[in-house]
Amino acid sequence: MTRSERRAARIAVDLLGGDDAPAVVVDGALLALNADPMLRLLPVGPQVVLDDLLARLPAAHRERTEPVPVETDGTLPVHAAVRLVSAERADAVVSAGATGSAVRSAVAHCGRFPGLRRPALAVTVPAARGPLILLDVGAAPDLTAADLVRHAVLGAGYATATLGVARPRVGLLSIGTEPGVGDELRRAADRELAAGVLPPDTDYVGLVEGYDVPVGGVADVVVTDGFTGNVLLKGIEGALRLSRGAAGALRLNHGTDGLRPDRAVAGAVRCGPGVDAGPDGADPPVDGDGVPRAAALLGVAASVVVCHGAADASDVASGIGFAARMVAGHTVDRVARMDRVFRELTRAPGGVRGDEATTGPADDDRRPR
Amino acid sequence: MTRSERRAARIAVDLLGGDDAPAVVVDGALLALNADPMLRLLPVGPQVVLDDLLARLPAAHRERTEPVPVETDGTLPVHAAVRLVSAERADAVVSAGATGSAVRSAVAHCGRFPGLRRPALAVTVPAARGPLILLDVGAAPDLTAADLVRHAVLGAGYATATLGVARPRVGLLSIGTEPGVGDELRRAADRELAAGVLPPDTDYVGLVEGYDVPVGGVADVVVTDGFTGNVLLKGIEGALRLSRGAAGALRLNHGTDGLRPDRAVAGAVRCGPGVDAGPDGADPPVDGDGVPRAAALLGVAASVVVCHGAADASDVASGIGFAARMVAGHTVDRVARMDRVFRELTRAPGGVRGDEATTGPADDDRRPR
Repeated sequence: MTRSERRAARIAVDLLGGDDAPAVVVDGALLALNADPMLRLLPVGPQVVLDDLLARLPAAHRERTEPVPVETDGTLPVHAAVRLVSAERADAVVSAGATGSAVRSAVAHCGRFPGLRRPALAVTVPAARGPLILLDVGAAPDLTAADLVRHAVLGAGYATATLGVARPRVGLLSIGTEPGVGDELRRAADRELAAGVLPPDTDYVGLVEGYDVPVGGVADVVVTDGFTGNVLLKGIEGALRLSRGAAGALRLNHGTDGLRPDRAVAGAVRCGPGVDAGPDGADPPVDGDGVPRAAALLGVAASVVVCHGAADASDVASGIGFAARMVAGHTVDRVARMDRVFRELTRAPGGVRGDEATTGPADDDRRPR
Repeated sequence: MTRSERRAARIAVDLLGGDDAPAVVVDGALLALNADPMLRLLPVGPQVVLDDLLARLPAAHRERTEPVPVETDGTLPVHAAVRLVSAERADAVVSAGATGSAVRSAVAHCGRFPGLRRPALAVTVPAARGPLILLDVGAAPDLTAADLVRHAVLGAGYATATLGVARPRVGLLSIGTEPGVGDELRRAADRELAAGVLPPDTDYVGLVEGYDVPVGGVADVVVTDGFTGNVLLKGIEGALRLSRGAAGALRLNHGTDGLRPDRAVAGAVRCGPGVDAGPDGADPPVDGDGVPRAAALLGVAASVVVCHGAADASDVASGIGFAARMVAGHTVDRVARMDRVFRELTRAPGGVRGDEATTGPADDDRRPR
């Protein structure tokens, strides 16, 4: 399917999410409509904000925009936006609001993958030796070893879909590379992963370390808990910001806690190893817009993109464009397929119950042992 | 006490620790002897390595060097080096070997602070807005909330002693700054710290995030578990290495998992806020050599300095010089004093049993619940 043949993606956008909402979200929506003539937008927010947006739209853009008003004192727009997806009125949701709200809405209204305890937030890091997927970066701080294994599967499916890596190499983030290092959680997860539980066409490369994430080259997927992943990503972000003075042109990739590359870095990423069009001919995942400056929520039966709370208009537009590419590239289906293979091979919870998503309230209050 | 009046520090050096030992350690020992005419060195290693070192020493240096041979097939030199401290033949130990071996030796032969479950490895990060202490960076991956509180106390004492900060600001590393964010461990530790358990002349500033560590400015001490701290420090290291190409002169501080500043950064650190001579007139902690490229083990009754496994000769010399400054500045005593105040005020374990160090085997096999 080429870009011109693909069905227009319908993207629901949370107008009130983010530190500088609604201004930057309205501006970002305009940028996104300009950038993709196929895009259909469902802005979700208070009527007054929708009126402002519509007033600024050229007639051609207005035809592709379906405003969805919500009461200011009622439901959060992100919840209403997610419900548009579960009602099949939209194909994806973009929010720069609180991660927790987006996760809870998605779990409650669209459902988790069968037997999955916690969804994971995944970013594409434009590492020096080629891009990699880092997950979880903040959806779930408290994880069990079984959660980490399951997230490794989701990350592998996501790397296949978005980086075009045919046989993703999966690494477990730890504090050394010899088996046995790390905390209890990592030692347990490493034992499970080393036992060969990952689906065919993935390789477990063992333990990787903190510097492997910005430097890259050793794994296509780095899996960790949401606490460590968030701290690491923000540390890398801070270090790059720190060196920007010395580096001159170096620009941060401010995806959800991610790296905002300057064009040179984005170019390097595009030319890096393993970055090609997806195997089924979907659009190249890293296009002229560079690495997505947003994170994808994996393990829910919907395309949910979370932008950094401090996103600017261009970041929001990048997130909307990325959501459209996720829809066009059937990213969620491909992640779900990898997850299903894992469940069938390992008889993981949900593996014998078919492929229906687990709906119901988020289990944010359940704690790992 | 001025530099000329101080007693010569006697530093035991593990000749076999580090990826490139003994060559870089021997070279580092020579550099350190050249740099400090007061230094006395006790190199510990196989006779053949000692012979090589002694053959290369000028007569004046040889007088200040007391070789300590160990069998190559017997005790690790780091264990023998630590025993020199417990026998009061040396004032401090420097090793670029495995952190675990140094920690176990120090705990077994010199003892932990009363009631302390795990010692912590602390680095000085030359953050952009002024240096800060990050701990733990790898001594203890599995911690309890009580451990984090105790480490906050050790870090505060260390910041007072080495950064010359009269009233250290202590932050707890998390994934947001609003109370209630983070994992179970952090939520529990934040509640305890916010209840005001830290000693007088310290301020708990609440939660800090990953980017606050390289950027700095919000806290003088950032406390976290050894897993997260190690991952974060290596991530920052990797990001700075990645940007070095763009930054030109930017040089990494390769302390134990730390940042190796170029002279400009070291200069900025020296001039940064809160960096003055210690209150009791000890040498300025950040001298012409820049931020120490090594980590200090806190919570043991000995001065133990751990260099990065990939240390070069100049890093080893920096670690030896730092150990000598710790001895001259009574750093361990000052950390112990802060810890004692905490125990007396909170009736923490050990607080009513006096100040004897807890000796015996390391409790590396004990796991937190």
